[in-house]
Amino acid sequence: MSTPNTEQVLAELTRVLEARKQNADPKSSYVASLHAKGLNKILEKVGEECTETLLAAKDAERNGDNQHLIMETADLWFHSLVMLSHLGENADAVLNELARRFDLSGHAEKAARNNQT
Amino acid sequence: MSTPNTEQVLAELTRVLEARKQNADPKSSYVASLHAKGLNKILEKVGEECTETLLAAKDAERNGDNQHLIMETADLWFHSLVMLSHLGENADAVLNELARRFDLSGHAEKAARNNQT
Amino acid sequence: MSTPNTEQVLAELTRVLEARKQNADPKSSYVASLHAKGLNKILEKVGEECTETLLAAKDAERNGDNQHLIMETADLWFHSLVMLSHLGENADAVLNELARRFDLSGHAEKAARNNQT
Amino acid sequence: MSTPNTEQVLAELTRVLEARKQNADPKSSYVASLHAKGLNKILEKVGEECTETLLAAKDAERNGDNQHLIMETADLWFHSLVMLSHLGENADAVLNELARRFDLSGHAEKAARNNQT
Repeated sequence: MSTPNTEQVLAELTRVLEARKQNADPKSSYVASLHAKGLNKILEKVGEECTETLLAAKDAERNGDNQHLIMETADLWFHSLVMLSHLGENADAVLNELARRFDLSGHAEKAARNNQT
Repeated sequence: MSTPNTEQVLAELTRVLEARKQNADPKSSYVASLHAKGLNKILEKVGEECTETLLAAKDAERNGDNQHLIMETADLWFHSLVMLSHLGENADAVLNELARRFDLSGHAEKAARNNQT
Repeated sequence: MSTPNTEQVLAELTRVLEARKQNADPKSSYVASLHAKGLNKILEKVGEECTETLLAAKDAERNGDNQHLIMETADLWFHSLVMLSHLGENADAVLNELARRFDLSGHAEKAARNNQT
Repeated sequence: MSTPNTEQVLAELTRVLEARKQNADPKSSYVASLHAKGLNKILEKVGEECTETLLAAKDAERNGDNQHLIMETADLWFHSLVMLSHLGENADAVLNELARRFDLSGHAEKAARNNQT
């Protein structure tokens, strides 16, 4: 269901976001421009993309086409990653919380062990 | 920054969500109860968790404590995964879209090659 | 289009909200319980009712029935009035701002004069 | 608490919105351009203004200045009026629902009677 490539996307994206937060020019980088505008601007984008995700889901239910929903959910996740980065967090903190809630540690540990043997 | 364990969380969670969608009793499973109530109920939860994430981010900025923000972002991502599952999608579609936008395929491919050698 | 009764609803409701903020028991009054829980709880309700309004509007567009949309919009306006009240404002400040933007003062003044003669 | 002028603002604004929906050029009227773009665009604006209202309320609580909150709440109410107009409703339907819930009819009737005598 999940390929090695997609498993690494959030970690890769976290590295990209961190680099753009630290070094990029707000004039040439969208992420850097969001950080320069501040938390409210970033949260406005999170809220905006959430609304567009809800509308896309309603349209997907109606017309059976999920393409727009996937684009909007990607926008929502992306801007929530920028929000985490702005406040000094990253995806790992959220993924660890999800793993804890769903008791995924055992599965993941077993999978990790299988890779090692 | 990202451990093998967190890299597998979304894939593990996708499997859990799929199993609960297909087999679970709405009386004993929260996820199954959401699917039984339908898309509007799921989208209400996505919107609700987005609002709580925004408020938690404002509070985190003020008091320097990110713990509540991480919990609410986990809620937001979790319910957006349930939304995707309800409409026949999963995290991979969104992660592939993010990889495409940020040209992460090269990095991920190289990382995959390194694992293979 | 608007009867004298509906013209007075926001002013009446403002008086009711003010009385419940000042005097009511959180155990017996929903409004008093919201004030006791604080601003975040009130804003969560505003965000929740906004999401439900969006979903109701999408459903109304599809099925031609506006009844649910009207209920949800009433919930949204009501909780935004509670928010204003919690922060020491009321509907008049918002209505004055709308009148200023749309240059309604002239119309309203003229209408007021006609009532006086 | 409420002056005759503010009592008439929603009715005046309803008339303005109806005129712009029916007759205005999308190139010269913001309201007409929203109707031309369709319901999703209008709902995106409602969601966007709701997010900005929540952020403004958090900032108002912190800095004691309500001016930005009033502007954003006006934006939220305005775009919800455009939404109602787009679906063939207006403020009166919502105000009647609020009056019904809070049993304001008696008060309003009595006030109307007093004006007549």
